[in-house]
Order: sequence, then structure tokens, then C-alpha cells
Amino acid sequence: MNERMGHQSIRFGEPVYIRSGASVAGKKEGEGPLGPCFDEIEKDPLAGEKTWEQAESALQHRAALRALDKAGIKNTDLRMIFAGDLLAQCTASAYNLAQLDVPVYGLFGACSTMGEALSLASMAVAGDFAEYAMALTSSHFASAEKEFRFPLAYGNQRPLSATWTVTGSGACVLSKVKSRAAVTGVTTGKIVDFGLKDSMNMGACMAPAACDTICTNLQDFGRQPEEYDRIITGDLGSVGQQILFDLLEKQGYDIKRQHLDCGMLIFDDAVQDTHAGGSGCGCSAVVFASYILPRIISGEWKRILFVPTGALMSKVSFAEGQTVPGIAQAVVVEHMEEKD
Amino acid sequence: MNERMGHQSIRFGEPVYIRSGASVAGKKEGEGPLGPCFDEIEKDPLAGEKTWEQAESALQHRAALRALDKAGIKNTDLRMIFAGDLLAQCTASAYNLAQLDVPVYGLFGACSTMGEALSLASMAVAGDFAEYAMALTSSHFASAEKEFRFPLAYGNQRPLSATWTVTGSGACVLSKVKSRAAVTGVTTGKIVDFGLKDSMNMGACMAPAACDTICTNLQDFGRQPEEYDRIITGDLGSVGQQILFDLLEKQGYDIKRQHLDCGMLIFDDAVQDTHAGGSGCGCSAVVFASYILPRIISGEWKRILFVPTGALMSKVSFAEGQTVPGIAQAVVVEHMEEKD
Repeated sequence: MNERMGHQSIRFGEPVYIRSGASVAGKKEGEGPLGPCFDEIEKDPLAGEKTWEQAESALQHRAALRALDKAGIKNTDLRMIFAGDLLAQCTASAYNLAQLDVPVYGLFGACSTMGEALSLASMAVAGDFAEYAMALTSSHFASAEKEFRFPLAYGNQRPLSATWTVTGSGACVLSKVKSRAAVTGVTTGKIVDFGLKDSMNMGACMAPAACDTICTNLQDFGRQPEEYDRIITGDLGSVGQQILFDLLEKQGYDIKRQHLDCGMLIFDDAVQDTHAGGSGCGCSAVVFASYILPRIISGEWKRILFVPTGALMSKVSFAEGQTVPGIAQAVVVEHMEEKD
Repeated sequence: MNERMGHQSIRFGEPVYIRSGASVAGKKEGEGPLGPCFDEIEKDPLAGEKTWEQAESALQHRAALRALDKAGIKNTDLRMIFAGDLLAQCTASAYNLAQLDVPVYGLFGACSTMGEALSLASMAVAGDFAEYAMALTSSHFASAEKEFRFPLAYGNQRPLSATWTVTGSGACVLSKVKSRAAVTGVTTGKIVDFGLKDSMNMGACMAPAACDTICTNLQDFGRQPEEYDRIITGDLGSVGQQILFDLLEKQGYDIKRQHLDCGMLIFDDAVQDTHAGGSGCGCSAVVFASYILPRIISGEWKRILFVPTGALMSKVSFAEGQTVPGIAQAVVVEHMEEKD
């Protein structure tokens, strides 16, 4: 029996197993600390396509096929895909999914999308709505710069608080068929708006939402931070991480020993000049599939809280002087002992 | 026990009751055939705000509050909202939801979003993940024209196949608390791409997806069109309707006697110069809440298939010469006899 915990969380009656995770990353990501972990590194920014948007679709397509292959199933075995990306009207997902020929629910949660997709795909399996469901997201440095910032050829300077959008796509297949890793609960995030307007400091915009979701998760499940081996945010970066620590301290929580951030894991700023860290829907997705999931499967980590974070803004909202609200979607992932 | 039907459909073990539906529409919509049905008509295109985007957020906020009020619950009673809109990065929803202070999963399904939101909110209730969940979408003529087409001041001519984006927002509250209308099943749509590229003929782009989802629903549930009192698409308009009839005929189905289209219901082209009909995430949402739901509640219609349709495109995909794939999400809604 699925159980509602507190006001925002769900504990699944049976674990929702992660049958597979797959990651396809770009050249710069491949040169970073997690390079050896990715399933595939695509060195061509256009991935053989004509536009960056099509390239992003292509990376997403490959990640989806790899996740299916690793799970030992076909596209026709998937009852639904939960997918999204950062582009206006989520076109990277739309063109991939049209080819993939699988029923789909499109999502928009900015860089929190992998958390949202894993949450909804887990609910779909836990509620007996799907035998197999997929969570799938992507981002691309060049398509995101074009969408949100400046033309690449302009070569603008970036403040140190800025993050570097990850080129890559991550996919996970979920089902009730047993494996060594499972989603056991979720905490649905609220949109939190602290009134910040700096799109070059998204870590600061998202940290309040991350704080809210993490605190709520701990309270709803009656846990202390120590009960998670790691609490892993999406893409707060180094600036957002410090703000998260400060905000959590005010709530009486210290997660410094447990905290990791996908954006800080994927690049080495000292060598790669990526400033605060990586970001984008693809960031937490590829780090989850390539780095986090294997540690859960091996049992190195018994239980983690995965908290992708999103900055909710558009070119238009920025131009109109609007704030950048944040959101964070949390998923509890646990190591499962093989019993059968 | 929730039951998976065929490859794309779900029949809920217990009905998911629609506790309330609310609609807020713009001036032109208020002057149309459904004017008397709306809960509120906002005559100011800016709804007292400074921008069209903020105006859309404001309409969405009012629709959400009205739906809560009609359901007799507070925002804190909602465990999750499934919401989305047409704007890049779904900002109309983000700014409303930040104010509403409710956990949220953001969606993008273009004009199919109300079907997607009702589907996922129904699953959330049917799976015991939420006591109360809300489905919420919006669109605004001026914010959509700015997003997808030309500056309003340019006064461009519109081909007869073009649709007119509805200004308005619709919201529904779902729960297991009994009422006279319920969602009893859903069919998840696939993205269907027939290779069409004309963003001024979205009915043609979406009709193949509508055909696919309707046929799949009929097959998965083993029903004939006559077993639905109405089959109601989102915003195919008059051009898309004819294409849908032709495509369905090739599949051996004739739904001419059952078919209605929200886009054709909301405007009177002869008087309002709206060409093929209304469109936008708000179109099917306000027509559902104001016109369809009351007929289910009264028992005039015992069972309908509600099939919002979406055209998946962006300014960028259009400029890059990409196709406009379509998607359609179907929800089975039935009249419930009062028993208690």
C-alpha cells in the first residue's frame, strides 16, 4: 500500500526498481572527472545533425535506446515515458519521442526534470499503471545558450556564479522487476520564489527550493540527514551549495558531510573553466545514471536523497524583469539486497 | 485494482471523482457561444497586470482558487498540482504556482496539456499518492501570438486554417470523495509526426495524433464509438475535424455523430472571425470545466472521451524548418449516480 507521508511525500508500498540507467555526454563532459563513467561520449557538438536542437534530440534518442538495451526490453515494452528538456516547448524531447514511438507524458521542470520524471515514472509503476516506465531528460550547451543567453559567436564573459549547461542525456527504466536499486519514496517540490532575478546566478535562485524540499523530506519521513549516505542536489554549483548550507543551518540541519551536487561533480573548474559548475536537465540525469546509480547498485551507498533543482525562467520573463523562482524534486533511492 | 488495458490505456479500479471544475475566460471568449457558461469573464486583456504573460498567470491563479473554492478545500489540502501552459519554459504556470504554495509537477503537452494533467492527476489519486490533486492549464491570445507568431501591432493576415488562441484558464480538483462525474480511464498518447510543417494549420498537424489516440482507446477498451455519448477533441478546428474523420474512416471508424471539438464550440467564426476555431492549452480546459463537465454531472452525457490535442513546435523548430508533430491525450469521463 502506497503511503502518504506528511504533506508532500509518498512512501511506496513496494520498491520501484531501477532496471537500468544510461548516459550519453558531450566532449567537455567526457573530459571531466566523470568521463570514464559515461556510456557514450559524443565528441561532435552537432552529433552528426544539422542543428544543436536536433543534436540534443539525437543524444536523447541514444540514451533512451541504451537504457532500453541495458534493461533488456524493447520500446514496445514501455507503457509510458516521462520526458522533458530545457528548450522552449520541449522540442528536443518531442522530436526524439516521435521517433521512439512510445506513449509519452511531456514534462517541464527546468533542471529539476530528472527528479520529476523519476518521481512520476515511479508513481506510474507503483500504481500499476505501467509495467515499465522511462524517465528521460537532456540538455545541450549550445542549444541552451541560444535559448537563454547570448549567441555563442558573441563570446560573452561569464560571471563566476554562472554555470555551464551540460551536453548530455540520461535515461532510466523503472519497473517492479527486481534489481539492486529502487526508488522507495518521493517528495514533491513547491515553487519557491525569493525574488532573485540574476539568471547568471541560478544556484542562488534554486537553493531556497532545495532547502525547502530537503527539509520537507526529512520531516515527512522523520529522518535525520545522517540516515542518508548522500544528499545529492542537481545543479546548485559551488555558490548555490554555500547558500543551501546557510539556509539549512537556519532550519537546524547540517548536511555538509552528506552533500554532493551533480553540477560540482561533472566538471573540474580549475581545469575546465566552468565556474560554479554544470547545469541543465542533462546534468543531474547523466550524473545519476553514470555515477550515482552504480554506487547504489554496488551497495557503497545504502540510501540517498536525489534532489534535482530547477530555475524557472525564460527569455521573456527575464526581459520583462521577472524573478527566477526555483523548484526541487526529491527521490529516495535505496540499495536492494538480492534475495531471489 | 487499477488495470492496464491493451498497450496504452488504464482502467482505474475505483473511479477518480471530479470534485470541481472552474473556468476563467477572456472578453472574446465571453462573447462567444459559451459565454454564459464561464465562471468568470475578464474583459481586460492585461487582467490588471503589466504584461500579457503576467495576465495569463493571473487568470490561472483565479481559476485555481475558484476550483478550490467549489471543491470546498484549501490550497493546503492539495497534495499536488499538475500544471502547464504554452509559453516557453511554462512561465505562466511557474509564477502562479509560486504564489499558490502547493507541491507541483510541471507539464508540457502543448494544447493537449489539460488531457495530460487530468490523466496524471487521476493516476495520482487512483494510486493513493494524493487525496486531492489539481489539473490546471492556461493560454492567452496575446502571449501566444508573441510566443509563436507575429507582433500583434503588425496586424498580419491569418489563413482560414489558422486557429485563434483562447485567453483563459481551466482547473479541476480530483479525489476519491464522491461526486457525479469521474475519470474512469485514460489512454496515453504517442507523438505522431506526419511531416507537416504549417504552423498556421495546426488542425492538420494534430489530426493524425487524435486519430491514433482515439483508435487506440476504442481498441484497448474494446468499445465502439457509439459507447461514448460524445468524443470531444481539443482544438482540431474545422479543418482538423475533417482530416480526423477521413483518417478514422480508413481505420473503419465513423465518429461523426459523436464528435465535438472544443475549438469549434468556443467561438462562432461567422460572427467572431476566428477562422478554424479556438486553440491553446486554455481552450480545452475552459470548455471542459464550463460546458462538458456540467453535462456529465447532470447525466445528459453518461460517458464521454475527452481528447485534448497538441501541436509540438517552437519558434526555433519552425525557423529551422522542422515538422510539427502532434499528440493527443485521452481521458474517459463518466456520469456517476449518487448512491450515498
